[in-house]
Amino acid sequence: MSNNIQMAKWLVHEMESLGIQVKQKDLGKQPGKDIDLPPLIIGRYGSDPSKPTILAYSHYDVQPAALSDGWDDEPFELTQKEDGRLCGRGTSDDKGPLLNWLNMIQAFKKAGQDVPANLVFCFEGMEESGSQGLADALKEESTGEFAKIDSVCITDTAWSTTNRPNLIRGLRGIMFYHVNIDGADGDAHSGAFGGSLSEPMTDMVNLMASLVDSRGKILVPGIYDDVIPVSAEERKALGEIEMSKASLDGGINGKLLHEDQADNIIARSRKPALSLHGIERASPGKGASTIIPGRIVSRFSIRTVANMNIAKIDELVQTHLNDKFRQLGSKNELSIQLAGRGDWFFEEVDHWNYQAAIQATEKVWGVTPNITAEGGSIPIALDFKKVLNSNVVLLPIGRADDHPHSENGKCLSFVNS
Amino acid sequence: MSNNIQMAKWLVHEMESLGIQVKQKDLGKQPGKDIDLPPLIIGRYGSDPSKPTILAYSHYDVQPAALSDGWDDEPFELTQKEDGRLCGRGTSDDKGPLLNWLNMIQAFKKAGQDVPANLVFCFEGMEESGSQGLADALKEESTGEFAKIDSVCITDTAWSTTNRPNLIRGLRGIMFYHVNIDGADGDAHSGAFGGSLSEPMTDMVNLMASLVDSRGKILVPGIYDDVIPVSAEERKALGEIEMSKASLDGGINGKLLHEDQADNIIARSRKPALSLHGIERASPGKGASTIIPGRIVSRFSIRTVANMNIAKIDELVQTHLNDKFRQLGSKNELSIQLAGRGDWFFEEVDHWNYQAAIQATEKVWGVTPNITAEGGSIPIALDFKKVLNSNVVLLPIGRADDHPHSENGKCLSFVNS
Repeated sequence: MSNNIQMAKWLVHEMESLGIQVKQKDLGKQPGKDIDLPPLIIGRYGSDPSKPTILAYSHYDVQPAALSDGWDDEPFELTQKEDGRLCGRGTSDDKGPLLNWLNMIQAFKKAGQDVPANLVFCFEGMEESGSQGLADALKEESTGEFAKIDSVCITDTAWSTTNRPNLIRGLRGIMFYHVNIDGADGDAHSGAFGGSLSEPMTDMVNLMASLVDSRGKILVPGIYDDVIPVSAEERKALGEIEMSKASLDGGINGKLLHEDQADNIIARSRKPALSLHGIERASPGKGASTIIPGRIVSRFSIRTVANMNIAKIDELVQTHLNDKFRQLGSKNELSIQLAGRGDWFFEEVDHWNYQAAIQATEKVWGVTPNITAEGGSIPIALDFKKVLNSNVVLLPIGRADDHPHSENGKCLSFVNS
Repeated sequence: MSNNIQMAKWLVHEMESLGIQVKQKDLGKQPGKDIDLPPLIIGRYGSDPSKPTILAYSHYDVQPAALSDGWDDEPFELTQKEDGRLCGRGTSDDKGPLLNWLNMIQAFKKAGQDVPANLVFCFEGMEESGSQGLADALKEESTGEFAKIDSVCITDTAWSTTNRPNLIRGLRGIMFYHVNIDGADGDAHSGAFGGSLSEPMTDMVNLMASLVDSRGKILVPGIYDDVIPVSAEERKALGEIEMSKASLDGGINGKLLHEDQADNIIARSRKPALSLHGIERASPGKGASTIIPGRIVSRFSIRTVANMNIAKIDELVQTHLNDKFRQLGSKNELSIQLAGRGDWFFEEVDHWNYQAAIQATEKVWGVTPNITAEGGSIPIALDFKKVLNSNVVLLPIGRADDHPHSENGKCLSFVNS
């Protein structure tokens, strides 16, 4: 933690030397500990009422790293490789992208030009630890430092390829379920009782099999009703992205469900998906290999997309599972809990915030960026959108092969071009 | 172990003092250790060629026990309770039943009568440790001490009730399966990849759901074809047994599948049953809660009854699962292993061995014993039957509420009436 606080001090000094007005917002202590959280660094550069005001988010903390993890070079010393790449922990996630903002101001100064927007910086030091304290700070500052924001730009993601930039317009939400089926107070011996007792595991596999098929189609009636169709144009663009095999199959030789690249990308980012994570015995006792488990708990989640409504989907899921359970004619007891939830994020690309990001990317890279969506969640994107009621663009800076959290010695690249 | 060897010495002395010819068969060492196994004690009492020769099996070893486990009295001192019960570890399983054989000879001597059969005793000291060495010893002695056996009587089970004796004619066999579905070399993040990867868990719950329904019916075509029907007479008798609630529901408030007692007993002892024991991820890695597991393994078992054939059932099961898997249209890989197997045991009750046991029970208890079958397996019963090619009767001595393996302080009863 002291490293992060040291990093914060260095960063404040750099920002102030560029003329940025800096406020260090105290986020309190680590929960249950007498250790200070690293501050949220809020900066302001310019306050011309005729210019738009952009909030820029990055984070200055990094994942842990040590040379002994298999790095080629000391991970906390910036090393330039023969091919020009600058390597070290955080070059891609997220110290490099953060420094882009400062380098940009330096470049304008050097060119003797005025930055065409007012900038408000929100640089976090706890992103890799779940953004502790950020949501509360956002709410507080929504009527303070962040009161008059016109749009938000988050630089904390990577390109979906290695050779072409993209902008991220969408993230999926998540609905995480626990399903319990209780049959008995404990486990039974399958020799002595198999055939006479109602077995929760039998019910459970039937319920789980009713949720999704082996082609990935969710079987809960009505679940696709509100999903926004993907346009032919977008589909075509997704098919043309040069994705590596590992980007598509997870780098684990996963079996792709769809023939076309575009369909696979759509299925994992623009459509809902239901994954069964685990089925476990939940009854007390040791659980020999031939038992009839008395209680079973399973976990599954639904990744949601625009414009699915959590309350509506939950109703569809619960109704479906309860109906199926009744059809089984089981004597056991079913309970279903929506144990976790997070909304999807989806922005309209015709907003000036996206159009500006597209134009800027075209100017720097000479190509129109791909407009993509990610399958996972980035809760802060939604926090910024909801709390500040602002359009949010995710502007990826790193590359698809940066391995930002890797511990296997692959070097993180940050191309400083 | 020294306790068992001490017990063996005491037992040999008791047997010899009754005129039994005793041979202590050395079973070698504990696997991988320099510790002697307790001997198999083989005894012979009488060799009149005009009498039948009965092999009697019991065991002199017991489960571990200590006063600190919650016993009311020192478990290795025989304690007489106020109601006359003799309590202590092994009174019911199986020192008490073993001593029955010696008491019986004492009683004949006291009455001045001749024992109407030649007796060959097979008293084991490793039953509670998986009958180590017994199967090999049986084979060796099948042309030696056990060469001219006419029938076998095993006294190592308990009545199925507390108030009426029974004879056990049948035990179920077991076929234990491992099913693997492999989709990827590791786990994937369900946010990033859910919808685009073929998920082994989805296939697995579909396969498992195709095996058995929530009413306990096995769905593998043809699996019931060779099962011997239960006669109306036997069904009626099973309905009349006075079973406790705990005997029926496992003492764990299990939900019974059938309305009638007879149907529940038949389902768990005279019909096959299929139980799903567990579904687990088998891919390397830590396995966060929202992963898509790359590999899944599940375990299930089928309890078999007369006259099911293991090879035939295995073919039916494998064909069924492979067909179902093809129907799923999955891109993953399925493998099925029959990882364990043991035959069922079923005797014809009209054999003189059973008729003699019925008559003896009627004489002692004044009632005709129930003829029952057990749902679990007792491998030694089948070993005696197959190796010695002999009819085997299981003559229960203890009561249904003896709790022979209990560690929770309930006293083991052996009613010496």
